[in-house]
Amino acid sequence: MRGTKLVNRLAARFTVLVVIALSATPSYAEDGYDLWLRFAPLDGVAAAKLKSQTPVVAPISEGDRSSTLDVAVEELERGLTSLRGEGDPPPAQNPVQIILDCGTEPGTGQSGFSLTPQLEAERPTFRIAAQDHIGCLYGSYALLRELAAGRGLGEISLIDAPAMPLRLLNHWDNPDGHVERGYAGRSIFDWWNLPGRLDQRMIDYARANASIGINGAVVNNVNARAFMLEPRYIAKLKRLADAWRPYGIRIYVSARFSAPRDIGGLDTADPLDPAVRQWWQAKTDEIYASIPDFGGFLVKANSEGQPGPQDYGRSHADGANMMAEAVGDRGTVIWRAFVYSAEDDTDRAKQAYDEFKPLDGQFADNVIVQVKNGPIDFQPREPFHPMFGAMPKTRLMLELQITKEYLGFASHLAFLGPMWEEVLTADTGGEKSVADVIVPVGMAGVANTGSDRNWSGSVFDQANWYAFGRLAWNPSMSSDAIAREWTAQTFTRKPAALEPIVRMMLESREAVVQYMTPLGLAHLMGTGHHYGPAPWVCDLARPEWNPCYYHRADRDGIGFDRTPSGSNAISQYDPAIAAQWSDPAAIDPKLLLWFHRVDWDHRMASGRTLWHELVAEYDRGVAKVDGFAATWSALESEIDPERFRAISERLAIQQTEARWWRDASIAYWQSVNGLPLPEGTAKPPFSVEYYRKLEFPEAPGQ
Amino acid sequence: MRGTKLVNRLAARFTVLVVIALSATPSYAEDGYDLWLRFAPLDGVAAAKLKSQTPVVAPISEGDRSSTLDVAVEELERGLTSLRGEGDPPPAQNPVQIILDCGTEPGTGQSGFSLTPQLEAERPTFRIAAQDHIGCLYGSYALLRELAAGRGLGEISLIDAPAMPLRLLNHWDNPDGHVERGYAGRSIFDWWNLPGRLDQRMIDYARANASIGINGAVVNNVNARAFMLEPRYIAKLKRLADAWRPYGIRIYVSARFSAPRDIGGLDTADPLDPAVRQWWQAKTDEIYASIPDFGGFLVKANSEGQPGPQDYGRSHADGANMMAEAVGDRGTVIWRAFVYSAEDDTDRAKQAYDEFKPLDGQFADNVIVQVKNGPIDFQPREPFHPMFGAMPKTRLMLELQITKEYLGFASHLAFLGPMWEEVLTADTGGEKSVADVIVPVGMAGVANTGSDRNWSGSVFDQANWYAFGRLAWNPSMSSDAIAREWTAQTFTRKPAALEPIVRMMLESREAVVQYMTPLGLAHLMGTGHHYGPAPWVCDLARPEWNPCYYHRADRDGIGFDRTPSGSNAISQYDPAIAAQWSDPAAIDPKLLLWFHRVDWDHRMASGRTLWHELVAEYDRGVAKVDGFAATWSALESEIDPERFRAISERLAIQQTEARWWRDASIAYWQSVNGLPLPEGTAKPPFSVEYYRKLEFPEAPGQ
Repeated sequence: MRGTKLVNRLAARFTVLVVIALSATPSYAEDGYDLWLRFAPLDGVAAAKLKSQTPVVAPISEGDRSSTLDVAVEELERGLTSLRGEGDPPPAQNPVQIILDCGTEPGTGQSGFSLTPQLEAERPTFRIAAQDHIGCLYGSYALLRELAAGRGLGEISLIDAPAMPLRLLNHWDNPDGHVERGYAGRSIFDWWNLPGRLDQRMIDYARANASIGINGAVVNNVNARAFMLEPRYIAKLKRLADAWRPYGIRIYVSARFSAPRDIGGLDTADPLDPAVRQWWQAKTDEIYASIPDFGGFLVKANSEGQPGPQDYGRSHADGANMMAEAVGDRGTVIWRAFVYSAEDDTDRAKQAYDEFKPLDGQFADNVIVQVKNGPIDFQPREPFHPMFGAMPKTRLMLELQITKEYLGFASHLAFLGPMWEEVLTADTGGEKSVADVIVPVGMAGVANTGSDRNWSGSVFDQANWYAFGRLAWNPSMSSDAIAREWTAQTFTRKPAALEPIVRMMLESREAVVQYMTPLGLAHLMGTGHHYGPAPWVCDLARPEWNPCYYHRADRDGIGFDRTPSGSNAISQYDPAIAAQWSDPAAIDPKLLLWFHRVDWDHRMASGRTLWHELVAEYDRGVAKVDGFAATWSALESEIDPERFRAISERLAIQQTEARWWRDASIAYWQSVNGLPLPEGTAKPPFSVEYYRKLEFPEAPGQ
Repeated sequence: MRGTKLVNRLAARFTVLVVIALSATPSYAEDGYDLWLRFAPLDGVAAAKLKSQTPVVAPISEGDRSSTLDVAVEELERGLTSLRGEGDPPPAQNPVQIILDCGTEPGTGQSGFSLTPQLEAERPTFRIAAQDHIGCLYGSYALLRELAAGRGLGEISLIDAPAMPLRLLNHWDNPDGHVERGYAGRSIFDWWNLPGRLDQRMIDYARANASIGINGAVVNNVNARAFMLEPRYIAKLKRLADAWRPYGIRIYVSARFSAPRDIGGLDTADPLDPAVRQWWQAKTDEIYASIPDFGGFLVKANSEGQPGPQDYGRSHADGANMMAEAVGDRGTVIWRAFVYSAEDDTDRAKQAYDEFKPLDGQFADNVIVQVKNGPIDFQPREPFHPMFGAMPKTRLMLELQITKEYLGFASHLAFLGPMWEEVLTADTGGEKSVADVIVPVGMAGVANTGSDRNWSGSVFDQANWYAFGRLAWNPSMSSDAIAREWTAQTFTRKPAALEPIVRMMLESREAVVQYMTPLGLAHLMGTGHHYGPAPWVCDLARPEWNPCYYHRADRDGIGFDRTPSGSNAISQYDPAIAAQWSDPAAIDPKLLLWFHRVDWDHRMASGRTLWHELVAEYDRGVAKVDGFAATWSALESEIDPERFRAISERLAIQQTEARWWRDASIAYWQSVNGLPLPEGTAKPPFSVEYYRKLEFPEAPGQ
């Protein structure tokens, strides 16, 4: 090896320049931890404007201060400093005063706010007004969001308020740190060290949520451990509640219905038993004594092996109302409608409706029934759940899954905004959309947070957390608008980069549908872990665990007949809606095989046979993902290296796995229908046996 | 609620000043992720000097470049920029050229380097010279470390080289993400997403290690899963090895001895069976084909239920040599000496020596026997392991535990430098210290890394990772020097804050010994999880699992007689050393109860009885921790808020738990000896029954 030699003077000069250039970039890495709260320095006109206006936050008079307003001031100062992008602002002649005017009645409603620039005044101001302090905090985040999108102070004039009262995250986090259906590492909740140690992440978590209007968190898995209601855990919950209170986040707990037996020393959990009722009353009082603004309980009862009132011959209403009585007007009992029974051989898609619809009107006022977006289980595409619109006397809440259990874990780019927009705007009949049904109540999203530095496993999965919050705030926001906001804050405001990123996001969920479960197929993934394709699984103990149950493919045809000739699940919908779906020739092909069983040579509107269309769908999905990878790779100069590489690697995994889904699925369908591939179509590289033998005992999230 | 009002003009001006002051602080949080590589901006004279010298890294000529030198240049530029603390360096008239002169023969030896300032020359230079590229990288980190400590370029002239060839981390990380004895979250190794996704943490991990000279990592638990040798895992290992190669980190794997049976399709793992030998040869070749610089295997065999050669009537040497033959001169087989047998009722402290000493001289040249610092298991204090000094014909490596399984998890401040200094400087007899014995071979440290943002659970635990690396590089470094270096880089260079932090660190391990296991006691912690005191446990299946086995306390006395009248473990030491310990009146009281059983009224050198001294030790330990909390609390203005709060909370937990150890232990000893407390001593607040009933099923790390 030769010695390293100093090259000439010119090169040395060049190095000086390189060092200068390097030092202009931020010294900290873009690791995704800051989420959409990066507040990257503005540039161009926006930067010049902000610099000249030099907004400063007017001090809050002592008597008006609160921990929430302190947060608002801190966030504004931090955000403005960061957007300004330089250490010292120039001394301003006449700085714009940002005035937090909270507790007046600007007509913005609870938690709402108005933003009003008065920049031409002698003493220029920008007013954030609200009737409560949390409204002022939301307004502060809104101002920063608008600025971060590149708008000038003078252009930011708006009045806004949350559409629905409850905007909750549901964490499927176990107290041992494992996250069910989590693909971003370990739980963010450090139960062992609480209450003594409060991880800074718990503050940053609250900041992220508050910035998009999320106002509650259920901190443990719906498959709950009863010991989380013990005093030692109440102390831990209290520490979290205290930390989150300034951010307007209330804490909720998933309660195990059998807790009176598990930890209460009783021999029953019968909701009509006086001792049981008394136990819940005392336990609830104990919690409220520590956490006066405790949100309430989330309950998964008589579902997938969880205990519930039916264990004692009681109804869901009996169980929910018993707990609701204990909670009283202090909080809410949220009862999940996700039930299906081992003893019930009805179409699984029908069971929740069948079980809950007769209970309409029987639930106490402070009970909410939480319903998944579709009647099965967070599939890439389902029609909306028939309970929406069918239970006018029950408070229904929408449950969405932010974590991508069925859409490629954290490896696949799948922006869920379009999926949620699809369900929210779905017409339930009677001129009510799903959004209309839930607006008086709320939305819950199963969180995708974890200990990964970027919170969500991949940066693009942050967009799903963001979109959930924004839609819960305003369910009529478009996916497009949300993707734009998020991209501008997370990556770049430059249209040349922002536009292709947004386009890719908006296409991404449909791509997943196409390469996983096209044309209304569902539930075809690997058993248990739900990783990868397994349409061939037909032998599991319960029929509705089997992909075969859902696709019903044989030599003649494919699809689940849910019309009157089949399970008649379609009858659970409003007749006007059902009518749109009842004819296989007229139904949107995206839902075809959900509602209909058709022959392989069924003629589609495209003119192709069902079989050819199905294969084409797989190929379209794969092609889209290839397109995403190409789009992203062209953005290298626009994205910081750390996030660029991370996303490139994820997209490469998605390309491989999309092909795997396509190839394995096609190989399997061919093994069933014996049909040749359409001309010009690539043959799967392996036989179905190859795919069938793949095993993934270490797949995450189970 | 009244409206928030704008207060007067004066206050508004004040706000402007506040904003300016705020914006001078770094905009990113001090979350501990950067470890000792923060390179906080210099101040005062050091800052002015660096600014005037404007060092720039001279470009490497194309023919001399390597990935390692690229890293060196990148690190230097990044570190200098950060130390300079401002975006743009002033244009320099005559900048100091930092010259990387690698591949020459400056006499620094393998991986060594010299740093030579020539600032007075017409063209001032600072030369980093080494005979290999990794030496240049180590030299670059050394330069940054010296600068970060506040020294000027002109004062940094040194020649240095690692004392021992192997400086390894051992990760007890399972492939499912659980870390055995891990208290910092989940494993940092994301096996599921490898090889497709390489987490940035894997690069930052390599940086941290290289910066302190660590040159290898065993990436999986010694309680190993055989599937980590399967091809799909070899691909994952290769991705890590490729990422770490530029940083001089070689990858090693813990191999399960029964792998030929578990995954190889053989019906035996007998090391003398030709098919088994062939399997290991083929498997090893397969690994080397992917990873040409693969470090080798670490094996835990016939210990705590792990399979091993004794299952086939073969010796440890038979097993190790068989694997060593497969590895050949490409790498190393590291064989752990941590064995104790369920069938053996000898003093557990004697067993490893008894089993391995007869094998001295039988191990192949590329086998290393890895020996824990003490004969039991990483206790807060043990005498050095008697194998050191007793196996002159065997290559011995020292195994230390960085993660604090027995010293308070991540909650207690316990800087382990003094503990390791104690073992390294221990005289084994024959004028050889433990350090002298291991210097030809190396040191391994059981890592304390995890997914926590600060890597180690608490910031102070980073110091143990750091100390391990520095001692492996130079085992004669003092704890004091290491603590100073680390504190200057991690917290502050200001003597008024640095001095008390260093003092606290240096006292901290002794404090833990005092409140947990004073006067030579050991192994008194809770069963399984090792959390908290449990001296009362006497009924576990195997005698050496019981605290009672170790303390042997009864009405008359306490302690383990390891003299000739007892187990005679003392005879395993060199007679000159044993002589220092054989007399209970003359032995260092810190080891008294390790080697001797004495009466409760045994008279100590202090004049107190053993019982009174024991109680006093507990109180001294607790008082020290109270002192740490007070010291820390006085430093609030010197430390960033995030880390200040995090450490304050940890110290509060430590205060509580130190008292718990003290109270529970004293209550138990009193229940055994019936003795009153010395006058003026605080009574434990509860009876021993109270402490005995505490249960911690969720304690981490098991």
